Amino acid sequence: MYNFEYKNPVKIIFGKETISKVAAEVPKNAKILLTYGGGSIMKNGVYEQVMNALKEVELSEFGGIEANPHYETCMKAVKIVKNEKVDFLLSVGGGSVLDATKFIAAAALYENGDPWDILVKRGKVEDAIPIGAVLTLPATGSEMNGNSVITRVSTLEKMAFSSPKVMPQFSILDPQCVFTLPDKQVANGIVDAFVHVMEQYLTFDVNSPLQDRFAESILTTLIEEGPKVLADRKDYDAAANFMWAATMALNGLIGAGVAQDWATHSIGHELTAFHGIDHARTLAIVLPGVMNIKRESKKEKILQYGKRIWGITEGTDNEKIDAAIAKTVEFFESTGLPTTLPAYNVPEESVTKIVARFEKRFYKLGEKADIDHREIEQILRDRL
Amino acid sequence: MYNFEYKNPVKIIFGKETISKVAAEVPKNAKILLTYGGGSIMKNGVYEQVMNALKEVELSEFGGIEANPHYETCMKAVKIVKNEKVDFLLSVGGGSVLDATKFIAAAALYENGDPWDILVKRGKVEDAIPIGAVLTLPATGSEMNGNSVITRVSTLEKMAFSSPKVMPQFSILDPQCVFTLPDKQVANGIVDAFVHVMEQYLTFDVNSPLQDRFAESILTTLIEEGPKVLADRKDYDAAANFMWAATMALNGLIGAGVAQDWATHSIGHELTAFHGIDHARTLAIVLPGVMNIKRESKKEKILQYGKRIWGITEGTDNEKIDAAIAKTVEFFESTGLPTTLPAYNVPEESVTKIVARFEKRFYKLGEKADIDHREIEQILRDRL
Repeated sequence: MYNFEYKNPVKIIFGKETISKVAAEVPKNAKILLTYGGGSIMKNGVYEQVMNALKEVELSEFGGIEANPHYETCMKAVKIVKNEKVDFLLSVGGGSVLDATKFIAAAALYENGDPWDILVKRGKVEDAIPIGAVLTLPATGSEMNGNSVITRVSTLEKMAFSSPKVMPQFSILDPQCVFTLPDKQVANGIVDAFVHVMEQYLTFDVNSPLQDRFAESILTTLIEEGPKVLADRKDYDAAANFMWAATMALNGLIGAGVAQDWATHSIGHELTAFHGIDHARTLAIVLPGVMNIKRESKKEKILQYGKRIWGITEGTDNEKIDAAIAKTVEFFESTGLPTTLPAYNVPEESVTKIVARFEKRFYKLGEKADIDHREIEQILRDRL
Repeated sequence: MYNFEYKNPVKIIFGKETISKVAAEVPKNAKILLTYGGGSIMKNGVYEQVMNALKEVELSEFGGIEANPHYETCMKAVKIVKNEKVDFLLSVGGGSVLDATKFIAAAALYENGDPWDILVKRGKVEDAIPIGAVLTLPATGSEMNGNSVITRVSTLEKMAFSSPKVMPQFSILDPQCVFTLPDKQVANGIVDAFVHVMEQYLTFDVNSPLQDRFAESILTTLIEEGPKVLADRKDYDAAANFMWAATMALNGLIGAGVAQDWATHSIGHELTAFHGIDHARTLAIVLPGVMNIKRESKKEKILQYGKRIWGITEGTDNEKIDAAIAKTVEFFESTGLPTTLPAYNVPEESVTKIVARFEKRFYKLGEKADIDHREIEQILRDRL
């Protein structure tokens, strides 16, 4: 096991009818900005529940945050935060709203230049406006970490940052929010959480059986509970198990002390940046390619994954790896997510464009930092 | 799944040669009281490492904290804390030292009467001196929770309290501390962590597969890595895996949203109070009795445990439960811990004494609060 530090102070409030608890969690006498997305919280009653709970509180609103939230949108909110001297941000929505809120929180107090530097130059987040979250969609794990991914529309760049300063003070997770989600968002959430686990699990072995078993626990739960949620949106227990699994998939726990990959995410971000494909769908496309091309360096873990998750024990190592990839593809497709580039009308030329972008960057991807632009090309061509 | 709240802000610093990091973690200009036990930290070099790291810091010492730490000892430290205006407590040792330090931290600022009330009358801990920990022994999980168990010698009472106020600010876990532990302490640690998991896992089913899989992950890790540690004390990876498993066994994670039992602990505490038997050993005695006597109400989970942990699939339900109990006993005994009362020279009269004590208390034990003094008698007689 590697040496590691782990600290996750996010207070989770989980369960049925918990949204009203927001009133006790927001700071007293704070000027609060409520951030949200395209308005689904109006239709599913979450907005009303939050507003009822916060009747007595001074509140401004900033709606219209899009999926793959835009830097440009965030900067509008930053202006409001500064002008209105907002001292608490309450994110009501899914991972995109929360990611945007985290960037707004950091950008509003960033004093070392252009806030864009936080994303492209790893500008250090010294301070941030405190955040709380009411989560409406299990997927990204943003409710229990300090990560955020932001897209700059003008340059088609999708970039991430991470800071303990933007971890939510609290996150309220009411699984009943799942009841009104469309199939597509549930499927995206299942695959997003699944691939978060895979990025921290399917690496080289550092002798960390507990982290491995935890990762497999989350994968198994997603495989068993995800389809139940898709089949019956009102199955509370399935929704709750799915929601908690998605949170656990990216709260630092299973990644503590082990190697981490994140190549699938980095390559996927480019597919979103160039083609606007949903984040989770880009992961469903790319992961099988990474597994196929990196089958040698990830061999032990892919074999372990195949055996423990899918019961694959027959054949040569290469046959077992093929079967593990096939099972993964089959699971993603069973949720309704296609896993090839043509299924999303991505032309071959896009591969060239994306590869050229990686060629210009100085870093390589993967847990061994050995995936260069040539291997990225192989991975993408594998999915044509 | 039950509704739950979960917050665990303890900073874990884990790995090889991490003890020197204590210097960066203790507050600047604080008056620190270093608490420790019987002196093993002098022999294994941990004391020296801590003192070297804290050369520049104003430090007092309070040694001699015993296993199953005494209320009477703690109150001596409370006097020092008050007289010397200590504002940070640094626990260097195992779970007993840390439990004592937590009680000292709470008692020093307790203003609602006799600090003993914290333990016997659930006196609320409004504030506590901040704590840091250097952990030398994987076992109790005290390094990542707000729990503490204290014994009052004068009345032979062993009582617990829990408060977020006494969670350590940081805990440093260097698995190399395991290298110098005697067999007995390793075995105690394995069984202690194992039973912590069982108390949160072997209850009635609330449909929480992820918590179940996490619990099984820890049990499996203890079963696989524990014997490696016993066989080769210098196996760093085994020590690290064991240490991290013990922390995860009682940091709130696997208990979030599920039923919890703790009958084994409550009954075990009386065996320690009356006979001074090591805490873990009392658990090794009592758990098989609880499993046997509560085989009906815990049936589904015992069967699941037997199947998933020990591969028990043959026979009637009762035969499978018998086999699961036998496997558990066998595992405990394989670490060197006897599991019956006579093996510790506990006479039959003690059963009567302990049962009489429970009869006087107004509460029942177990996740269903249905274990009364008559069932406690059955459980203890099962172990004669």
